[in-house]
Order: sequence, then structure tokens, then C-alpha cells
Amino acid sequence: MEAEFLSWLRGQLPGHPRLRLGIGDDAAILELASGARCVVTSDMLNDGVDFVWDQCEGPLVGRKSLAVNLSDLAAMAAQPLAAVVSLTLPRHNALAVGRQLYQGLLPLAAEFGVAIAGGDTGSWDGPLVISIAAIGELTARGPLLRSGAQPGDAIVVTGSFGGSILGRHFRFTPRVHEALLLNDRYRLHAATDVSDGLSLDLSHITQESGCGAQLEAAAVPVADDAYRVAAAEGDRMTPLEHALGDGEDFELILAVPPQEAARLLDDQPLDVPLTRIGTFTAERGLWIEEPGGRRHTLAPRGYEH
Amino acid sequence: MEAEFLSWLRGQLPGHPRLRLGIGDDAAILELASGARCVVTSDMLNDGVDFVWDQCEGPLVGRKSLAVNLSDLAAMAAQPLAAVVSLTLPRHNALAVGRQLYQGLLPLAAEFGVAIAGGDTGSWDGPLVISIAAIGELTARGPLLRSGAQPGDAIVVTGSFGGSILGRHFRFTPRVHEALLLNDRYRLHAATDVSDGLSLDLSHITQESGCGAQLEAAAVPVADDAYRVAAAEGDRMTPLEHALGDGEDFELILAVPPQEAARLLDDQPLDVPLTRIGTFTAERGLWIEEPGGRRHTLAPRGYEH
Repeated sequence: MEAEFLSWLRGQLPGHPRLRLGIGDDAAILELASGARCVVTSDMLNDGVDFVWDQCEGPLVGRKSLAVNLSDLAAMAAQPLAAVVSLTLPRHNALAVGRQLYQGLLPLAAEFGVAIAGGDTGSWDGPLVISIAAIGELTARGPLLRSGAQPGDAIVVTGSFGGSILGRHFRFTPRVHEALLLNDRYRLHAATDVSDGLSLDLSHITQESGCGAQLEAAAVPVADDAYRVAAAEGDRMTPLEHALGDGEDFELILAVPPQEAARLLDDQPLDVPLTRIGTFTAERGLWIEEPGGRRHTLAPRGYEH
Repeated sequence: MEAEFLSWLRGQLPGHPRLRLGIGDDAAILELASGARCVVTSDMLNDGVDFVWDQCEGPLVGRKSLAVNLSDLAAMAAQPLAAVVSLTLPRHNALAVGRQLYQGLLPLAAEFGVAIAGGDTGSWDGPLVISIAAIGELTARGPLLRSGAQPGDAIVVTGSFGGSILGRHFRFTPRVHEALLLNDRYRLHAATDVSDGLSLDLSHITQESGCGAQLEAAAVPVADDAYRVAAAEGDRMTPLEHALGDGEDFELILAVPPQEAARLLDDQPLDVPLTRIGTFTAERGLWIEEPGGRRHTLAPRGYEH
């Protein structure tokens, strides 16, 4: 539904002289009257859709609701500045729920220097809804966009993928520091974060960049959790399939010029591993090459809102 | 609930060097690295609480969801710049509902020069939820705060009050242009907008300013709709009581130094009437003076979230 709606909406929205980047990337870029630019993003989380309140720890829900926004800012290589937090709390137990959310949200805000700048709080007879908008700032190096990938660029990712449902989707570290460091020290062409799923988010880069991508199956870093989930589900899907489609890994996908990628992978400047998983191609589409050289098309897969 | 929660939250939030104004006013003020300041606010509207989808026109719901944010920016004398729109649509009919919302939202955005900078869209089995965060900019005259009222200041309001439920709560014009003009041409001490209710929002100014206020009952501009609602409800409340407590008028309450107020009221520089309805007092509390001179305390009343 979301993709169809966004496609319609993009056709409806007029340009705006101060909107430097609108719908279609991880966040928007606004220019203030002074010429300063800021980055804005928002995410709404709903009980029963993005989490099940009765089955999880309240503070982790609060943490996640901010962390997903910080991950969007990271994908732009923006430094987080502030967040506004809107809550519609279940009327029964509203105060206790609100406090639990902030117990998880405030430490993460402190960790990343995010000012909680207010918001809106109400209650109703429905399920918990959390909507956070976050504001960040660009460094002198400028933003990383989805649209900059070029054929021949290496596809480089942070961390590993799949099975985040086992807990990583709550406890992940938004790759803010990693993105700022990489954008500062290396020449990167494009970036996004993996919220929907590795293959689906990769396809967002290829769509916005007008190119394709070929993955090397053996190179994709599959998380231990992906093996656990696959086994628990009786191997309905392989661990690799979980890595490609589960989503909510909140790692970075980067498009890096080949020589720069070689330097980056040699340096390994982060606490989390950087892995080359494939190459952007001139031919549009998504492919995966199995060990042995067999190549087939890959249907982008992940969480469709 | 909201008041109790916000009181708790204000005690939890640490300061932040870049947060120039946090919770407790109509919007927050952030300072960017360049020194530029921006104003941020957000509002969440829920089906069954802020509107009843099945009983109203969809585009008006979309319009209102942005308009309430613009009213918050107006209350700070900020120029609107952009909004991010997060929607959780009812799964049944999601696309049609989303389109209707934007049919009302986009014309208002165009009217006030607001860039729609993206957002988040999803769907669920629950009722429609709309969360909008808006960003504005301050003029060289700086912001209007709730906290600046001084004893002796005139209480001046735009427009009239009460009975907005008959339709004005959907169709109101956020007082953006009015606030910018007044802040530019006159020396104002404080402002807020009337979302909860005239008496309750007035009490927000007195609380933040550490003063009191005395209203003159005969001076309060009572809207025709307040008479209609009173009559329709068998005069359970007087039209004046509706004016003081109904809320969602989205007019401005201003604290104006006495001589400046005389000039302002004489000029009447707006298309909408400006009326002096009382005086801020050194003694804390809220009073209303009836015609004939009887004075009694006024319980702040309005929509408690």
C-alpha cells in the first residue's frame, strides 16, 4: 500500500524553493532563510503493527521509536539534533505507558545528543501510537542520498542481516557515528539504511539512482539470528533469504567507488564490520550470483507497509 | 491526563545547549550549528477523538491536521516553512482515505507556503491516525512566548469564541499572517493560540508568566456559534461559558503593554477584530468581572487531553 500511495503522492506535491530534497529518500532536506540546511524525518509506530505492547518491554518500544528516526538521519549522514514526540496512549494505564516509553527513549536521546523538543500527548480507547519526527544537521561533507549510486560502485554494508525479530530490531544501534565517520573520511556515492529489508532497500537505491545491482550470495553477511529463525521455522526459508528480506536490521547500504571501496574495506575503520556484497550495474534490475557463478534475478523483498 | 504527564516529563528532560525553548510553550525553538533558529511543533489527531471520520468530510480532516500545527507556529510568531506528515490509515480503503486527507492538506500548505517534506505512511486495522510535525522560522523580531506577560498588560484577542464544534474547528484560518503582522508592528509581551479553550489557554500564559488575569465578561467576543450551541443544548451553559471553555477557536491571545494596546485597538490593523477582554494582574489566579462590578474566580476550563 505504502509504495502505491507514495507514488501517487509524489505526483501531487509541488516543488518548494526551500525543499532541497523531498519524498523519495530517507529524510528531507530543508533550507532555512539563513541558508543553513536541516534534515527532517518522521516515523510512526503502532501497537500490533510495529510491536506488540503486551509481549515486549515498554522502554524498548520507546527506544525503538526514536532509534528508527536516528537510523534515517544516519542514512543521510546527518548529525541528530532534536526530536518531537507525539503519543496517543491507551486510556487505561496511560501515564504508566508514557513513562515506560520515555524510560527507553531518554537514554538513547542522551547517548546521541538529541534534544527532546516537545510534542503532543493524548489518550484514547485504541492501541498505543508513537510518532516521532527528528531533525538533524548536515556536516560540511553534505548529505548521502539514495540517488548517487553509479554503475561499477561497490555495494558495501555494515554489520549482518536477518532474524532481527529475535531482538535486534529493538536493541540495534543506529549507525549515526558510523555514517558520519565514513562520510567524513571516504568518498561515498549513495546510502540508505535497511529498515524494510536488504534487497528491498537496495532496490530503493537502484530506483533512485537509475541503475541496477548484482549481489554475491556468498558475500552477504548473514546474522546468527537468521540461522536461528530459519531453524525455528523448519527451514521454510534459508538463512540467506532471511538476510535478504527480513528487514529491521538498521544497517547501512553504501555505494562506494571501486578504488575507494578497496581502501575502505582494507581500513575497516568501524567497530562493526564493513563487507562488500556486490556491485551496482548499468543494467537495471536486481540479480544475485550463487557460488559457482549461476546468476538469477532477485525479487526485492521486505516489509511492505 | 496530559497536564499530569507533561508535568512529570518536564522534570525528566535534561536541558540541551541547542534547545532554546522546550516543553511548556506552543512550540520549541532549536538553534542550528550556524546559529539559525527554527521553531518545531507537532500534533497528532485520532479518529474518534479529534474528529469522527464517518461524520465529516475527509479533506477537512486533512486540512485541520495541518492547520492546528500552523496555529501553533502562529502563536510563536513564526513563519511556517515545512511539515512532515505521518499517517496510519485504516487498512480498508487506505488509499482513498489518504488521498482525501491530502486533498484538504495540500491547498492549505500552498496557501501558507508550507513544503510537504515527507513523512511516514502505513495502515492497520485500527482507526485513522494523523501526526504532523511543522517547522517554522523566526523573524528578526524574535518569538512570542507564553512566558512574557506582565501585570498591567492588556489581554487582547483576535476573533470570537465558542461553538467552534459547529464547523469552525475545521475551517478556521490559522492566524499566521495576523501574528507576523502584529509582532512586526507592535511591541507584544506574550501570546498563545486557543486550542484547549479561552480560559484554559489564558491560564497557560499566566502560569508560564507567573501572573494572574482578570477578564471583563461583557468584553469577551462571543461567537454566533456559541449562541447556537447554547440554544441547541437547552441553555445548559450560557453562550459566554461556551466562549470561555469550548476550545478549538484557534484565535490568538496576546499580552500587550497598556499604551501599545490602546494603539493596537485604535489601529485595528487586521481583517479580523482585535478585542481587549481584560488585564493581566500581579495576583495569581483567574477572575472574571461581571457587568455591574461583581468579580469572581474563574476555573480554567477547556479540552483536557
